[in-house]
Amino acid sequence: MGLELYLDLLSQPCRAVYIFAKKNHIPFELKNVELFKDSILGTKMPGAEAEGGATAPSGSQPKESARVKKVPVLKDETFVLAEGTAILLYLSRKYNTPDHWYPSDLQKRAKVDEYLSWHQANIRSNAPKTMWIKVLIPLFTGQPLPPEKLQEVMDGLTAALDQFEGLFLQDKPFLVGSEVSLADLVAIVDLMQPVGVGCDIFKDRPRLAEWRKRTEDVIGKELFLQAHELILNISKLSAIQISPQLKEQLAPVLLKMLR
Amino acid sequence: MGLELYLDLLSQPCRAVYIFAKKNHIPFELKNVELFKDSILGTKMPGAEAEGGATAPSGSQPKESARVKKVPVLKDETFVLAEGTAILLYLSRKYNTPDHWYPSDLQKRAKVDEYLSWHQANIRSNAPKTMWIKVLIPLFTGQPLPPEKLQEVMDGLTAALDQFEGLFLQDKPFLVGSEVSLADLVAIVDLMQPVGVGCDIFKDRPRLAEWRKRTEDVIGKELFLQAHELILNISKLSAIQISPQLKEQLAPVLLKMLR
Repeated sequence: MGLELYLDLLSQPCRAVYIFAKKNHIPFELKNVELFKDSILGTKMPGAEAEGGATAPSGSQPKESARVKKVPVLKDETFVLAEGTAILLYLSRKYNTPDHWYPSDLQKRAKVDEYLSWHQANIRSNAPKTMWIKVLIPLFTGQPLPPEKLQEVMDGLTAALDQFEGLFLQDKPFLVGSEVSLADLVAIVDLMQPVGVGCDIFKDRPRLAEWRKRTEDVIGKELFLQAHELILNISKLSAIQISPQLKEQLAPVLLKMLR
Repeated sequence: MGLELYLDLLSQPCRAVYIFAKKNHIPFELKNVELFKDSILGTKMPGAEAEGGATAPSGSQPKESARVKKVPVLKDETFVLAEGTAILLYLSRKYNTPDHWYPSDLQKRAKVDEYLSWHQANIRSNAPKTMWIKVLIPLFTGQPLPPEKLQEVMDGLTAALDQFEGLFLQDKPFLVGSEVSLADLVAIVDLMQPVGVGCDIFKDRPRLAEWRKRTEDVIGKELFLQAHELILNISKLSAIQISPQLKEQLAPVLLKMLR
């Protein structure tokens, strides 16, 4: 038994791990978890928050990860690891991936760390909310969110994107200089979440759009689209019939997540 | 000009950086920023959120860090770095600190990374709120928070602490095995924030209390107390007179942070 990755490609950190492993030709067995869809369809009951905002069952994951109740989860023989960033760093070290992903240069590496930390408290805490607002809340409550709530989320995202461009990207090709790093990878998968639900955050931001294009190119168009296929078709979820019981159960949970 | 650290010891990540640098005999010049106190006393106006929840002026920090508007900030000659975790990792690499802080063992290092990531989304997002609730909101609004709001924050903290004990600490002496690591350091400084405002989260958790004692002992009582002196006396802030104008200005900002 080799490396196993428990992923749901609707979750952003899962897409980062998937792209990183594929791009670097790391051999792994994909364990498709489908936390998100299953819990929406009601075939599995929601257990706990998953990284990136999906809900998590406990049946299909290895024992320790089930207790963490999150995706992504890595299982390498008996070693179990959760948290997207930790998994990316573990893979980069174990498989000695090209230096640009996590530069050995002291200052460049520190700048990747700085971005990854900022990202979690700013982009990660804002971008995924657009999916709850535009797709999931309307789906479960049967009505759109109040406009002021929508505005609040969009304001938070706008402020985060202003800082992303002004403090981090600036006029550089990538977040930490001239080559792509884990910072860009972690950023792009989160910023595609709003795009999937119809908030084209790149539209009025040419610098951000150019960075996206560069990042997509270096990852490879085909791999990028493959990883994002599910999220770019998330709007099809609206056609799903949901039992009134499940709606009643999940609506308050979803609304609480937005606070 | 050598290493400069811009710190406000009322902020948890600043305390982690301070303790780490002192404990490892890293020579640095302390630039005392006092973001927190200054903004409360009204001598400086609040600019933006600082890591850990303080507000940040832009006057007394180096140029790049002022744009980030956060503490802690490291300045090493012309190199400027924000974000507590990034600073700790940079110091550990540059000064080649003892291995136990960030173990070179692949799996142990991954477990430190896993904790640091989980910490930010769980402990960091919950523990500091107790200070806003117990000290700052009453100070600025003149009345205590509604009990249900207080309960909500305490419930979030309880859930995070249950996971901290059950998933991470378990029956080990420290979070990643038998030796102290950056995970324990980052954890303890955040968990002292509630203690400072009178929420003794260690009281009914003997396992957590033993871990705290072990961590304090390995850091050294004197250094630990020195770093926490300000936060353990935060209640004295209640005696401060605040201008009505400043109250009016800051109360909505504080309340928004709690949402």
